[in-house]
Formats: sequence, structure tokens, C-alpha cells
Amino acid sequence: MGERIPHWLDKQAALNPQRTAIETSDGGSISFSELRERSRRMAHALMGNGVKQDDHVALLASNSSTYAVFIHAVSYVGAVAVLLNTRLTSAEIAYQLEDAHVSHFYADGHHLQVATESVREMNLDVRRLEHVEEKKESLHQLHTDLDLDDVYTMMYTSGTTGNPKAVMHTYGNHWHSAVASALNLGVQEKDKWLNCLPLFHVGGFSILMKSVVYGMPIMLFEKFDARKVHKAIMDKAITHVSVVTVMLQRLLEVLEDGTYPDHFRCMLLGGGPVPEVMLKKTSAKGIPVFQTYGMTETTSQIATLSPEFAFSKLGSAGKALSPAHLYIDSTERGGVGEIIVRGPMVSKGYYNRSEREGAYLRTGDLGFEDEDGFLYVVDRVKDVIISGGENIYPAEVESVLSSLPGVREAGVTGRFDKHWGEVPAAYIVAEDGASLTEKEVLDWCRKRLAKYKCPKEVHWIEELPRNASNKLLRRHLSSYSMQGGDE
Amino acid sequence: MGERIPHWLDKQAALNPQRTAIETSDGGSISFSELRERSRRMAHALMGNGVKQDDHVALLASNSSTYAVFIHAVSYVGAVAVLLNTRLTSAEIAYQLEDAHVSHFYADGHHLQVATESVREMNLDVRRLEHVEEKKESLHQLHTDLDLDDVYTMMYTSGTTGNPKAVMHTYGNHWHSAVASALNLGVQEKDKWLNCLPLFHVGGFSILMKSVVYGMPIMLFEKFDARKVHKAIMDKAITHVSVVTVMLQRLLEVLEDGTYPDHFRCMLLGGGPVPEVMLKKTSAKGIPVFQTYGMTETTSQIATLSPEFAFSKLGSAGKALSPAHLYIDSTERGGVGEIIVRGPMVSKGYYNRSEREGAYLRTGDLGFEDEDGFLYVVDRVKDVIISGGENIYPAEVESVLSSLPGVREAGVTGRFDKHWGEVPAAYIVAEDGASLTEKEVLDWCRKRLAKYKCPKEVHWIEELPRNASNKLLRRHLSSYSMQGGDE
Repeated sequence: MGERIPHWLDKQAALNPQRTAIETSDGGSISFSELRERSRRMAHALMGNGVKQDDHVALLASNSSTYAVFIHAVSYVGAVAVLLNTRLTSAEIAYQLEDAHVSHFYADGHHLQVATESVREMNLDVRRLEHVEEKKESLHQLHTDLDLDDVYTMMYTSGTTGNPKAVMHTYGNHWHSAVASALNLGVQEKDKWLNCLPLFHVGGFSILMKSVVYGMPIMLFEKFDARKVHKAIMDKAITHVSVVTVMLQRLLEVLEDGTYPDHFRCMLLGGGPVPEVMLKKTSAKGIPVFQTYGMTETTSQIATLSPEFAFSKLGSAGKALSPAHLYIDSTERGGVGEIIVRGPMVSKGYYNRSEREGAYLRTGDLGFEDEDGFLYVVDRVKDVIISGGENIYPAEVESVLSSLPGVREAGVTGRFDKHWGEVPAAYIVAEDGASLTEKEVLDWCRKRLAKYKCPKEVHWIEELPRNASNKLLRRHLSSYSMQGGDE
Repeated sequence: MGERIPHWLDKQAALNPQRTAIETSDGGSISFSELRERSRRMAHALMGNGVKQDDHVALLASNSSTYAVFIHAVSYVGAVAVLLNTRLTSAEIAYQLEDAHVSHFYADGHHLQVATESVREMNLDVRRLEHVEEKKESLHQLHTDLDLDDVYTMMYTSGTTGNPKAVMHTYGNHWHSAVASALNLGVQEKDKWLNCLPLFHVGGFSILMKSVVYGMPIMLFEKFDARKVHKAIMDKAITHVSVVTVMLQRLLEVLEDGTYPDHFRCMLLGGGPVPEVMLKKTSAKGIPVFQTYGMTETTSQIATLSPEFAFSKLGSAGKALSPAHLYIDSTERGGVGEIIVRGPMVSKGYYNRSEREGAYLRTGDLGFEDEDGFLYVVDRVKDVIISGGENIYPAEVESVLSSLPGVREAGVTGRFDKHWGEVPAAYIVAEDGASLTEKEVLDWCRKRLAKYKCPKEVHWIEELPRNASNKLLRRHLSSYSMQGGDE
């Protein structure tokens, strides 16, 4: 048994009953007191449906305040929430339901059909999320404490090879992640965090956790919509937004020559380094971009670069937050190696898989630290292209490609080559109206990259393959470009 | 083994190497990087003196930056710091050294003599604190991690009866206490906390901990001096000060008709409820007073009242911080009972005493919660006067006495009475130049208190007996007044 703390939602409802917990983009709003009442009602309803402590309860749903209510209800029951990606096929859902030993399954109206398909060959019912909460209170006993060592959520990582695995997060992982972010970014009375990331991913989920740990209002979007998010930042006293690079790019397009209000104090940017050209734009507009490094296994960000270092440490993800350790597995000081992390926000392991040995997590990412201890993430270990014995990091090539005027975004992956083993191939999404030739692209690269790093072929595509959290899936570039408008 | 985190001073030296960690009132200043270097050097020196992991190392010293260096050095060694009160007699010191199984003893120059006296009959040397740091680095291995379950400090509670007991604080107690305060008061980049409380008490020590957990500069005073503290608040960009009531009163006297700069955002007030008349003054001047409730066993504050409730909840200590539980041991809702607390900042127990059963700490304080859940501390269980079967809470009577113009401060305690068992006796410190009569005092009380609560006698004294953290020692009122100028 670990450290026990009062249920965090009970606590906020006691400390700040009238404070807004969740605003929704449709103008709705719930106070911490109301969120507690709804969550406890839903907890009673879940228990009425047979959900017991330690049961694995899956949810397939879009972002909504009911999603948040469900999440807290699960903690009042002491069950474990298995959060499913809404982009999954019914077969993928079926795999995860079985793998996670799910005994109760809830889906919202939008996903009822795929959910129902997914359980066709299983002994499992699908219940509709929207119909759960109406039930009355029962005599069931709800949890008044949270044990920081108890598993609270499971989220599947896509992984670049093999079957997806469920990352287990304890209450302690979520608590320490929220605290680490608070110690890094500070906590102020008027903070209000906008969430347009999916709640089934740790980036979005962590904002729900910050809300209940800090007693902070959040504004919840069903999904990212650049114009609506922009409008909220301008008009709704938003102080923080979490985005991935492609979202920031869209926001900058909408922002045009304007800038954000003074109280806007943090654009938390995940999902890889930001291209220099974009950074220059944000800097010119005074947008405080915090570049981060993190993953599901680290319960969101574990390293962050503050805006004051945005240029002097261009491309860095900063330093490991307190209280996290971060090492590079390299024999030479400053050399590239796998990034290894440790800390109370790092997941203890994957569900139903052999336990990790020791406290250290090998991230599968390559990086190095400069002489001041700033982390540079080079690439995924598995995405590295090995060409004639040389390592090529796709991210480096993509960064050069993205800086070419007319290029909106670019992806690079390895293609089999009889002579070199692999050679880099570029996949480019052009700006609207831009007319670029392959020669222009290759000339641009040759001036900026060693010859072996230059793409050997260029494909023009409509969009890059990304997962539900908008991360580039390089291994899908070639197949995706064949399906989707390669010229 | 508990959760492990990177050594917090290593972390701050990595994240904020150049940021000021400690300013001293003489104009000195140490950065986090320097503090780390000095602390590690001292850790090597301590190990050179034979200090090993888990050893109990006592310190008898006034506040200074070297005190802070020592504290961190002990954590690099993995030893336990036994922090002695500088007001103790040599016999009291000897008792604590034996009781705490101290194997190494350091004292600063001011306290070398009493320290030496205290060990006269013991097999223990006294080393001078100021001479420790000069040593060079050695080959000893320093700790790079802190285990949140490891005991870090021991501080003696005076207790109102019986021998003092050593409260054990783990790293986790200190960490969670600092985090709880951060979640309550927020953390901002320009925060700078002034400490004029002794570091051997948890109120002062907790500010050192906040500094290293938040990466926040503190300004360290050797002791409280109203004029100097006032000047620092006015000129040195101070945002927070921790005080007890009597210090706040002195500060208000110095402040006169002025007020504090806008950036001053927290006067954290411990040591009992503040008299209404003082609260009116601070409110009129816009001084943000946060009234708190806490003790050594809760690793400083565990409940706090924010200034917005200062008047609507007059006399309340607010609500239990996240993540703490607080209950009243009373059969009726809203009734007075002993205050019971639980949470990760609550000490697991006393050194070398039988372990507490369960996670709940009985505080020995009486209080009640109003209908909104705000805590009112009524008094110490042991200070309650029982007169003809009725409970009289000295704090209530003192509050009435303090509101009488001409009264600077007042203490109330029980005196034996053949008929009633006990009756209340008042001890009053008059304002300079005030001329009050016993009749005026008693008339004032009779209008405001039930007859049985009115003091049956009034003593005029020069000052109230207080312990090193300035808390009123009611049980010493009668003997103290006889030694010290009772009229």
C-alpha cells in the first residue's frame, strides 16, 4: 500500500466548491461541486451496473464533460479506466478489450456502432455513456481516499512494431506529473488551461488531472479546430494551451499578424521539436512556447524547455522536470544514445507484460545532452535510417525540408536500397498554391545536409499519416502515399 | 523503500544554477549552484569526520546560510539531522542528545559553550559548524536520490506535559508539505520568501524546503527584528513572510500608516488565531494575511484561511490543504472536539516511542468546523479550564482581553479554586503608557463573556512566557509572572 491522499475531487469540491472545473466549447460550465456530485452519481450508477473495485472499465468516447465525469466516477469506485482511442477499428478495439481484461465497456453515441461491432464475438455488453448518469444514488460505499500506488488508468501505446501495449498509470503517476508541471510552470489563481487533445491520450488526460489537482478551470474542446481554439484564446481568458506542432502551425495561420492577449502564458508543445521557422514566428509574436518531451509512459511531459531558451537552445526539449531523472545511454559525454528516464511520474510498466527490471525506463528515443545539460531528442531508435553504415535521423532531414518556403510539412523514412541498405525518401505536403520541383527540394537539401542524408526521392502528398494524437507515423509514409494522392 | 526522487538540490542546481537560493540579511547571496557545491563539500567533510548514512547528527545553531548548507549536506550523506532549539539549557540538550541517539554533534560559535557543557558527561564531541566546510572533496559517495520514506529530520516538541519527544520527518513529509503549500498559495516566478523564524522549528525549516523544492529564493534572517524585516519587505522584492501573531503585531507598529508594496502577496500567520482588531488593521492596509493551523507533527501548516475569508470566517484557520484530511472527533455535527489529521505531510511518529496506531494523528487541539467546513481552533485540549463543570477556552478569553484598548497582549490560565475546581486568571501586558485598572478589565470581560468565563484575577506583567517559536506557554504564566515583574 502506498501513500494515501483524500480523493482529489472531494478535496477541490471542499476547497473551491463554486470555482469552475470545466467549461465546454459550447458554452457549458460545471463547478467543482457539481462535477463531484455528477461523478459520485455516476459512480453509484456504475456500481449499479455491476462495476466493482479493481474492475477494468473501458471507455470509447469523444471529449466531453461526461467523459470527465466518467473518469472521476471510476476513481470513486476504485476501478481502473481503460481509455480507448476513438480512431481504432472494431478489430483493434476487440484486441484491446481482451488484452486489458475489460469486464465493463462504455461508449458514447458517436462510437456505439463500432463498439458494438467490436464485442460481437465476446461475452461483453456495451453500455451507452450518456445513459449512465441518470441513475439515483445507491447504498454503495464510494472511495474517499486515493492510494498513490493503485492503478487508475490504462492507455494503449501504438508502438512502432508489434502489438499495442497498455501503459498502466497509478494515481501517484498522475499526481506527480501534475505537481512536476506546477513546479515548472508555476500555478496562478487565474490559470485556465484549454484542452483540444483527446482525453484518451495522456496529453489531454493530464490536463484533467491538473484541473483536479490544482483546482483549476479547464476549457474542454471535443477536438482541435484552429478557428475555435484561436477565438477561445482571444476571448476566454485562456492562460495555457497544450498542442502538437501541426496544431501550432494551424493556429499561427489563423493568428496571421495578430498576437495573443498578455495573460496567455503558456503554449505547451509536444510531439517533437518545432521547426526554426515556426519558432521565429512565435517569438516575433511574443507567444510563450514551451517545448516538451514526454510520452504515455512518462504520464505526459518529463522534460520542458522554457521560452527564454527557445533560441539559444534551438531544438532542445529542455531539462528533466523536478522530480525526474534523465540520462543518455552513451559512452561519450554529449554523445547520442537512448534516452533513459526515472521518476514518480514514470509508469511502472505495461499491463499483462513482463515487469520492467529496475526503475529506469528505456524510452526508445535517441537524444543527447549539450554541455549545459539541455536535452536534444534526435529521433526514435526505430526510425533511424542506416545507409551505408551511417545513421540518418529522419527528424533532421524533415527539419531542413520544412524550412524550405512552400513546404508545409515533411516526413522522411528509409527505403530499401540494394547498394546502401537503406536510403532516405522524402514525403512533402506543399503549401496551398506553392509550386515546387523535386530539383528545388534536392538543391535545398544538398546545401544544408551531408550528401548521404539527402533524400534520394521526393513524393508529393496531400497530408502526412498521423495517429490520433497527431504524431507523424513515418513507417506508414510509403503505403499512405500510395493510397492518398502521391503524384 | 518508498518513492525515490532526484536529490532536490542537484535538481535545482541543474534547472536554475544561477538563480539565488539564499539571501542573508547582511547582503550576502548564494545561488543554487553555489549552495549545491558548498553542501556537497560539507557532506564530504562530515563523512571525513566519521558521519555515516543513517547516523543521527545534531545541530545547535542560529539561522545562517551555513545552517542551510549543513541541512543539505546531511541529506547528501543520507544521515538524519537532529535540530536543537538554541534556547535550551545544557541539561535539556543533554537529554535530547541521549534520547535521539545522537552520534555527532555540531554547534555554531554562539552556542559552543552550552553545547560543550551539555556533553560533559557523555561520550560525544562537539564540533564547530563554521570549521566544517573548509575540507576538500573526498572519495566518499554522496546520495544522488532521496527516498521519500527515509527520515530526514528530527525536531523536539516541547509538549505541555512530560518529556519532549522527537518528531520524525521524512523527505516525503517535507516534499508533500512544500507541494501542498504550492497548490494552496500558487507558485510564481518572482516569489521570494522571507524567513525570520528559527530554522530548528518546522515553520522556519519548511521555508528552506520550499526554496529547494520550488527553486525559489529566500531571504534568511538570523532572528526576527521588526524594523529590519519591515525594511526588507519594503525594499527587497519580498513576496511572502511567515510570522506568528506577536511578530505581525510588531510589524504593524513599524508600518504605522504605510502599507506594503503590491507584489507582497502573502503574510503566512501561524501560532493561533489573530485578534479581530489586528485583522481589521491588516485588512485596512490591504495586507494579505493567511491564517494557518499546523504543528511540528504536520510539518508546518496543514490548514489555511485565505484573505478573502478573513472577515466572513473570522478566527478560522480555513480548510485542510490538499492532500490532507482533517476531522473533528465530536459526536455532533459542528460540535467541539479534538482535531484529527492525516496526510502525506503528517509525521509517522516520534523517535524511540511506541508507534502511532493508524494513519490518523490526534493533535491535542480542540476545534470545530462550521457549516461550510471551515476549521476553528478552540484551544489546546490540555489548556482547557474546567470550572464548575463548564469548559473555558483560554483563547476565547484572551481574544476578548486583547481587544481592550491599552492591552498589548494577554494570557489566560486556570488557577486552583476550592469551590469551582479551577477559575480563569488573566495575565496582561499593557501598551506602553496605557493605564488600565483591574476593574476596567473585568467590566470589559463581563460585557462580552459569560460570567463563569470572566477572569477572577488580573496580573500585570512585562511580557508573556513564549517558547522559541514565540508560542504562548500558558502553563508557565503563573510562575513566570512571579519571577518577572508581577505588580
